[in-house]
Amino acid sequence: MSDAVLERLLADRTQFIARLAELVAFPSVSTDPAYADGMAAARHWLIARLTTLGFQDAQEIAAGGHPAVTARWHGAGPEAPTLLVYGHYDVQPPDPADAWASRPFQLTARDGRLYARGVSDDKGPFLLAVETLGAFLAVEGKLPVNVTLLLEGEEECGSATLGALLTKHRDSLAADAVLSADGARWRADLPTMTVGTRGNTGMEIKLRSAAKDLHSGRYGGVAPNALHAMARLIATLHHANGDIAVEGFWAGAKAASPEQCAALARIPFDVAQHDTSIGIAPSHLAPAHFLERLWLRPTLDVNGMWGGYTGAGGKTVIPALAHAKLSMRLIPGQAPMEAREAVARHLRAHCPKGVELSINHTRDGTYAYSLPASHPILLAAEAALERTTGRKPLRVRMGATLPLADIARNVAGIDTIMFSFATADEDFHAPNENWREASTAEGFAAWVALLRELNGVKRTAFHPTK
Amino acid sequence: MSDAVLERLLADRTQFIARLAELVAFPSVSTDPAYADGMAAARHWLIARLTTLGFQDAQEIAAGGHPAVTARWHGAGPEAPTLLVYGHYDVQPPDPADAWASRPFQLTARDGRLYARGVSDDKGPFLLAVETLGAFLAVEGKLPVNVTLLLEGEEECGSATLGALLTKHRDSLAADAVLSADGARWRADLPTMTVGTRGNTGMEIKLRSAAKDLHSGRYGGVAPNALHAMARLIATLHHANGDIAVEGFWAGAKAASPEQCAALARIPFDVAQHDTSIGIAPSHLAPAHFLERLWLRPTLDVNGMWGGYTGAGGKTVIPALAHAKLSMRLIPGQAPMEAREAVARHLRAHCPKGVELSINHTRDGTYAYSLPASHPILLAAEAALERTTGRKPLRVRMGATLPLADIARNVAGIDTIMFSFATADEDFHAPNENWREASTAEGFAAWVALLRELNGVKRTAFHPTK
Repeated sequence: MSDAVLERLLADRTQFIARLAELVAFPSVSTDPAYADGMAAARHWLIARLTTLGFQDAQEIAAGGHPAVTARWHGAGPEAPTLLVYGHYDVQPPDPADAWASRPFQLTARDGRLYARGVSDDKGPFLLAVETLGAFLAVEGKLPVNVTLLLEGEEECGSATLGALLTKHRDSLAADAVLSADGARWRADLPTMTVGTRGNTGMEIKLRSAAKDLHSGRYGGVAPNALHAMARLIATLHHANGDIAVEGFWAGAKAASPEQCAALARIPFDVAQHDTSIGIAPSHLAPAHFLERLWLRPTLDVNGMWGGYTGAGGKTVIPALAHAKLSMRLIPGQAPMEAREAVARHLRAHCPKGVELSINHTRDGTYAYSLPASHPILLAAEAALERTTGRKPLRVRMGATLPLADIARNVAGIDTIMFSFATADEDFHAPNENWREASTAEGFAAWVALLRELNGVKRTAFHPTK
Repeated sequence: MSDAVLERLLADRTQFIARLAELVAFPSVSTDPAYADGMAAARHWLIARLTTLGFQDAQEIAAGGHPAVTARWHGAGPEAPTLLVYGHYDVQPPDPADAWASRPFQLTARDGRLYARGVSDDKGPFLLAVETLGAFLAVEGKLPVNVTLLLEGEEECGSATLGALLTKHRDSLAADAVLSADGARWRADLPTMTVGTRGNTGMEIKLRSAAKDLHSGRYGGVAPNALHAMARLIATLHHANGDIAVEGFWAGAKAASPEQCAALARIPFDVAQHDTSIGIAPSHLAPAHFLERLWLRPTLDVNGMWGGYTGAGGKTVIPALAHAKLSMRLIPGQAPMEAREAVARHLRAHCPKGVELSINHTRDGTYAYSLPASHPILLAAEAALERTTGRKPLRVRMGATLPLADIARNVAGIDTIMFSFATADEDFHAPNENWREASTAEGFAAWVALLRELNGVKRTAFHPTK
């Protein structure tokens, strides 16, 4: 049962970690223009590596936003499917920088984990896929399927131009399915396949209560305070129990069915352990209810809120401006634009008198996604995981968003399968993002197994209705 | 009716402005330790100037906090009163720096105003007093009263050690009254004497909802959000009409009497013009009600509030921490510690479940102050203003706080009279702080007239009950 490709990958793990250290050292933060150099450096490094591994046409492509990196190997013939293997080289901002135990852009190993911004989301997981494909080319001179690589540069800021990119490059990016190295597996102790994601959208709002900040002694009692208004306004968004209080927000949403709830109840999950692990007060939720809230209910979160004096000491000022960033997670049936407009309507209706509200729609958003239950890559991936872990994987959903799945279905009419070896507890989008060292060996084994399962699968199996 | 002292001051106005430009160039921000050098440089400059003007013993004195600058001229004899002429050389932080039209620490003249942080609060007004006293010494070789100068360095951060300073230096600072060049006159078009101020106190609060910031996709729906909790908590502090909703906050407070309200109704005041001048929505308050809210009602303001991601673009994070700075203005009868404790009790009682509240009491606070109606310096100041403006000054209160008045009464048993030529519309504690150029001539005339009125007043008049 030995596999020469896997043996090579496992033998070269030290070099793999060294390459990952080079890749995470580029501060490729897409949401903030200050990091443009880090973005460009990451792309150049990737193009060089993909060329070395034997891919063709490694290059940047763009459609008005941050460029993506693409490359291809199409030697498996016209009968074989073409898979668009996806990852993203952009990362979240490192803020708050002083909450990191080691430098955010320096790979640091501690206690069986590798720490760096982007190491888990998504540089480590996609580098696993890239190096596995490279090992097939090195050992066997070929891949079981045709592969086009697409490494996006805008995932962490909403994939604003990914649809335009897939449209503009529809010929060179044409594929039968997307195989994503992004998306994260749910748990390290349980083999799972993720068959659905939540959608999302967001906005930024500003309240103005006066032409300028005012002295609290000179004007206190007769001038409105933008922060008081912001607090009142934000407080109207949820009921006291945390439920969303925005009229029309749930329009079209498909609430969890009894069958879905029953399936959730069969998934082993320790809520108390989860609550402890992230340091929140015990929620005392039943496991099925917990999973329903996480996977099959929408959310509305304030991601940032600020105004007035925030420096050292005190300043007796009545702030004239208050700001907040809001984002939503959406479930199947909800249209992002409509959910966002419901929130905007709510904000306008509840804005305290005497305060001026402005709303900035930063992006359109992404629909929730559900993968067809009998998709051939889903079946192949489940078989691969069962072979490498010895356990039949559970089908789960996730609360996060993969804009790609929505876009690929809309633009190219193809489905997206997540096959990632990030794990949900690895603090992506937070300080001290990390990745299990053990995920490298597990990931290499699974990727090799998946490619072996795909050997001989015909591309016609991907299009049963044609 | 010519006055040689006043003539000299008016003839030297260009030099006065040049000296003020030197003084405001020192960034003497007391609340933030980063400005320690600016504090020290301002003190050194003042000591040199006071010595040049003929004051004795110009020096720094301190009692554990930022040093004050002091100097004296006691040549008027034991029958004459000793006045503690007060000002403060510290200033508010310049934040937000990008809201300034010119550099905050560079004196800039535009449209009849001088712009700089501290120019109105309090460097310009106390420099008027200092230079007037210096001109008396230069022209006449003496002053009509004994004078001790006290230029404080902690007024803008709550005068934390002023009481200790007055206690520690009780002999050298002994006086019959405080004559303050701080406090600001209400309006430039109406001669007024301020006979009362509000007290104040403050606190900083922090909410923690989780051990760390969390990914909104991975945890949205099952993790609490510290910013939601902060909004809910802050929103409970006021009723929808803006009234304070904190139980016990008004304990001991003396609400405005019918006589006080009747007196307020006799003061000419254009509410609509006021609202327009600071860019707030029309309050439609009757003038007497407006003045009651400003002078005879307490306030509770959030001065700063922040948490989560506040940079460019979006970040789908559930913030684990939220912060707010609160301050209060208090009226006669309210004890600062009790008012603050009432707010703390309210915050603890209303803190949303699952969130940890911490309260940091940064300072004890200051009581509201009322000046006795027949104080000899009040009468002298009213006579001086009537002589220089041709109009009988109105007695008014102000909404701001002068910790000195509270401290001087408690520590030294003496009253404080405000005689300032700052004006309330000059944006102190806000960007683009400014001072009327015309206030220099008006201020010099009034200070000279006041000192002439005090000529021959016996110190026994200050202590009628002794």
